Parts: sequence; C-alpha cells; structure tokens
Amino acid sequence: MALKISDLGGEAALINVIRDKFGAPSTGDLALGIGDDAALIHAGDSLLIVTTDMLVEGTHFRMDITDPYLVGWKSAAVNISDIAAMGGIPTYSFVSIGLPDIEIEVVESIYEGMHDVSARYGSVIAGGDTVASRGGIVINVTQLGTVESGKVARRDGAEPGDAILVTNTIGDSRAGLELLLRFGLPPLTPPCKGGDWGARGSEQCVLSHLKPEPRVNEARAAVATGKVHAMMDLSDGLASDLCKLCEASKVGARVIADALPISEDLHIAAARLDADPIHLAAGGGEDYELLLTCDAKSAPEIARAVASTGSTIRAIGEIVEGHGVVLVLPTGEEEPIGGSWEHF
Amino acid sequence: MALKISDLGGEAALINVIRDKFGAPSTGDLALGIGDDAALIHAGDSLLIVTTDMLVEGTHFRMDITDPYLVGWKSAAVNISDIAAMGGIPTYSFVSIGLPDIEIEVVESIYEGMHDVSARYGSVIAGGDTVASRGGIVINVTQLGTVESGKVARRDGAEPGDAILVTNTIGDSRAGLELLLRFGLPPLTPPCKGGDWGARGSEQCVLSHLKPEPRVNEARAAVATGKVHAMMDLSDGLASDLCKLCEASKVGARVIADALPISEDLHIAAARLDADPIHLAAGGGEDYELLLTCDAKSAPEIARAVASTGSTIRAIGEIVEGHGVVLVLPTGEEEPIGGSWEHF
Repeated sequence: MALKISDLGGEAALINVIRDKFGAPSTGDLALGIGDDAALIHAGDSLLIVTTDMLVEGTHFRMDITDPYLVGWKSAAVNISDIAAMGGIPTYSFVSIGLPDIEIEVVESIYEGMHDVSARYGSVIAGGDTVASRGGIVINVTQLGTVESGKVARRDGAEPGDAILVTNTIGDSRAGLELLLRFGLPPLTPPCKGGDWGARGSEQCVLSHLKPEPRVNEARAAVATGKVHAMMDLSDGLASDLCKLCEASKVGARVIADALPISEDLHIAAARLDADPIHLAAGGGEDYELLLTCDAKSAPEIARAVASTGSTIRAIGEIVEGHGVVLVLPTGEEEPIGGSWEHF
Repeated sequence: MALKISDLGGEAALINVIRDKFGAPSTGDLALGIGDDAALIHAGDSLLIVTTDMLVEGTHFRMDITDPYLVGWKSAAVNISDIAAMGGIPTYSFVSIGLPDIEIEVVESIYEGMHDVSARYGSVIAGGDTVASRGGIVINVTQLGTVESGKVARRDGAEPGDAILVTNTIGDSRAGLELLLRFGLPPLTPPCKGGDWGARGSEQCVLSHLKPEPRVNEARAAVATGKVHAMMDLSDGLASDLCKLCEASKVGARVIADALPISEDLHIAAARLDADPIHLAAGGGEDYELLLTCDAKSAPEIARAVASTGSTIRAIGEIVEGHGVVLVLPTGEEEPIGGSWEHF
C-alpha cells in the first residue's frame, strides 16, 4: 500500500524527506539551506535572507472568521517574522496569489494589508504572480531580507546553561482562534484594520491571531547586543518550536510553567473557553513572538535592549544537556512538553 | 454591483491594478519591479534576479494528462525560463507546495522533476514550505538568479527598425495541449522522464507542452554579444507576449506569418487537430522560447551565438514606430495579431 503524507507523520516528516533527498547542502554561497526560519545566502559583507510561506484558504484561514485586509496583513507578517527570526531587516517581497473569480475590492484589500505591514517594516512588494484558483484563495509570499554577517541568528546555537527567553506574551493567538471558532468574528468597522474591536478584553486575543505583529525591532535590538546564541520565531507554538530549536542545537530544555508570559486577556479567554491558560501558552501556535537563548548572565542586557522597543521579554527556562523539552508544572511535577500545529 | 476579476478583464488587468496601487517603484536598490519577467535588485556589480510563479491544479495542470515528475519539472522550468529571459543564470529556488493527503511517492516525483531541471541549469532548491491543501495541488516556485549589469535584458529596449527573433519553433506546446485534451496522455514508461513517447511524430508537441526546456544557454549566448535590445520568454504565446514587449518599449511590430518557425511535428499535429499551424504558432502559449529584438544588422551575429548552443533562432518580423502588432499573412493581407492565455 502506498504511503500517504499522513502515514509518514505529516508536514514535519515530509519536510525532512524532501530536505534529505532534494535540498541543497550549505556550501559555497549558500550559508544555510532548508531547516531554519529562512535560508541565508552570502552577498558581500551581508547575508541575503530568503523565506517563503504559503497560506491556503481552509487550511490557514477561513474567510468567514477573518477579513481580506487581515488575511493580507498576516500573509506578509508571518514572512517578515521569519526575517526577524534570523536577526534581519525585511527588504522586498514577491507575492503569488491564486484567486477564484471574486470581487476586485476583496483582492485590493488583501494587497492593502500586505502593503501596510510591509511598509511598517520598510519592505516593498517588488513582484509576483496572479493566477486563477477554483479551490479557494492561495497566497504565497516570498520575503527577502538582509542581515550583517555578525548579527545573524540561527536555531542551532543554543548551549547548555543558556537562559530561554520569549518576547511579550504567548498563547493569545491560539485562544483567539478558539474564540473565533466558537463565537465567530466580532463586529468590525470596515475597512477593518484591526483596531475596532468590541469591549470584551479577551478579544485582544482574536486580534493577536488575525493581525500578528512581526518582531523585527525586538530582534534587531536583541542581535545588536551580540549576545544571542540561538533565535527563532514562534509559529507552530512554544512546545513544537522549542523542540525544533533544541534538536537543531543538539540540546534539551526545561521550561518553568509558572514563568510563561500569560496576558490578562488570555486568562479571560481561557475562562470563557474553559481551557487551561498554561496549556494554551505552551501548546500555542502562531504567536509570532521571538524565542531566543543566551548566556544566563546576558539576559538582563538583552531584556534592556528589547524593552527599548516597547516590548517585554522574559526568561522561561533553561537549556540543558541531552535532548527533549520538559515542562515543570507549578506542582513541581515534570512532563514532556506537547502539542503542535499539524495540518495533515 | 461589485466588480469581479473577470469583469475587469482578467489576470493582466488585475496585475496592472495591483502594480499601480501596491507595487514598489524602481528606485534605490530595486532596479526593476513588477512588469517584466522578473525583478532586478542591485547586488554589487551584478543584479539579483527574482521571479515567482504559482501553478494550480485544475488551472495550469491536470493530473490525468500529465505525470508528477513532469509537473515538478515544468514548475521549476517556467521559473528558470524567466531568469533566462533577463539574460541571467539561475542560482537558488524556494518551493512552496500545497498538497492534499496524497502518496509520498507522488510528492517525491514532483520534487525529483524540479530537482532535475534545476540541476541541469546549475540551480539548487534552498528552501520552501509544505502545507495541506484540500483544493488540489498548488506549487509556487520562487527562483533567484544573477546577471552581470552589462548583460541584463529587459522588455523595454526594442527600437523601430529592430529585427524580431524567436528561438527554435513555436506553437508545439499549444498543439500538445490540444492533443492531450482530445486524446489523453500517451503511454509513458515509468518513471516518466519524458523520453519514452509513442511513434507518432506529433507527440513531440505533447513533450514540448509537458517538459519545456528553459533557454538559459541560448539567452546567455545572445546577451554575451552585447547586441540584444529587448528580450523576454514566450509564456503566454507570441501574440500576447510580443504585444507586451511592444507596450513596454512603446513601439509596434509587424510579424510575417510565413516566417514563423513551425516544426514538422506541429504540421502533423495541426492536421490531426484540423487546426491552422500559423494560428497555433502565433496564438501559442507556454512555448518558453526566447523572443528578442536587435539591430537588423546584428541578427546574424546573434544567430551564430545561439547556434553554438544547438538551438536555432529566426527573424520573424520587425519593430516599427507606433503601437499594435500586425500579422502579415501569406496573401499579403494584414490583421491584428490575436489570442492569448487568460485563465479567469
């Protein structure tokens, strides 16, 4: 019987097969190929960063619980976040979009969202492709960026004894998604640019899900200290992403549940959802916050640098020898950290 | 009533709206933005070339009349062709793929096809994304390339009096598509790498449709002469693409029907299809041959350069003042050249 993608173990397992069989080794000008947030290509004294993400209607977004402007914003934001994850500055994007025969103003709203988040971080749309798609909207963004050779951050630099830090709060986006799935989209004042939400505090979680802010400034401030050992953005959730960082660095990690940065909005949302806020924060998904490691003694310097951007950053645990990531519960019990996004 | 994409005039009209409203102007490091085969970004003494194309199952390919290996080959080949169109060398590609839960070996065959055509032209797969798609297979390739500043070819350099040249033969791919739609896929010896076709000569047209060869070597030979005024690849068909080249260059063109390079296979295919070979060649689509213009007196030098790669190139008409492209029929009558691919 022929093996299907789901039999193999889904997206992550498939990517490993493809990388091993068809991916380029990191030689010559290619400083880093498949396996990090983005690829790195030597370009004089700097590195060209390239990342690409495909968003498919029905898999990554549903038009009944979002808005075209926000779909565009998020499509560009998640790619810009990958550039930030490498310590870089976004420069140019290339947008391919597959479209059913929909209203022009819907298409324009999608591009407006992409344009606005790109402009906020100094990037422009420099090319693309527009094609017909009967199976729903498909958006592929390829984002270029640049980073000085001395500032590049990768996943594979974590060392035992490192402090593990995350920016701002996590879990909000996951809670926002659960709220959207349960209660639908709150009323938006068109054209929705994400600022016009209802009075209930937990709807900030919805905003966090629909309109993530890439942490370019925070990443640049962090790498400017020269003290970052490893960094990535949280796209699949802390549990899944920290496991990837540890695997790339050949280390393990201990995360202190009580130290997870949980917003007041997430507490309210968790109550509405009858869910555990720690589970939402650790399982998470689509936070687009930064996860980084550094010498424990450098953590205050990095925290000061990040604070200068208006964001917060907090230590949530430490890198240890070995492998695997454990979550230390408030009771003192330890359990393997679990849960991730898996679309297949 | 809200205007839909089809009301606006389809893909080409939509691209104009997007470029005008959301596209970056060609300033600073961006030497050329939306509107050519690819974007150009300054990178020291050379230019970085970036192009992206999305292929959607049901719009661009049907799995019942192709093969996974060939879908992969073509997805990469059409992007490499865009790099060739600028006079460049392909370097790195980034592949996003949206997949239903299909057999792993189908996915591997797609990547094998992409890998093989990339390797043939010195390019490697350096990154990508793999996501679930319920609406069929979607492949997006972003191809990077490089070109020396002095060798770059664009669409907008054609001048009145220029000779118009095309490589090899045109119309084969369109005829191949029509044959596939009418007679289905001929028997393939697995794993099909496109070499195992039936005895009927017109099936070379099918091969031309399913397994196009990007004209990298021909383009490099042509630009090395320093005599190319304007160049692009034929993706939408001669009629449509020459109109685009003329519009970009603010000129018109006269094409001599009798001069169109029509293969013997196309004559056979046209007979089987009860179609006019000139119409197939001029309307065409997906030829992935090169269209270029140069001083009439430079044509022999460019022809010699291209001949050194094993391909042929032939003059099919001339650039004139004004606008519009006319086809001069064997009877001496003139008619506006027509027909193009339009998916919406």
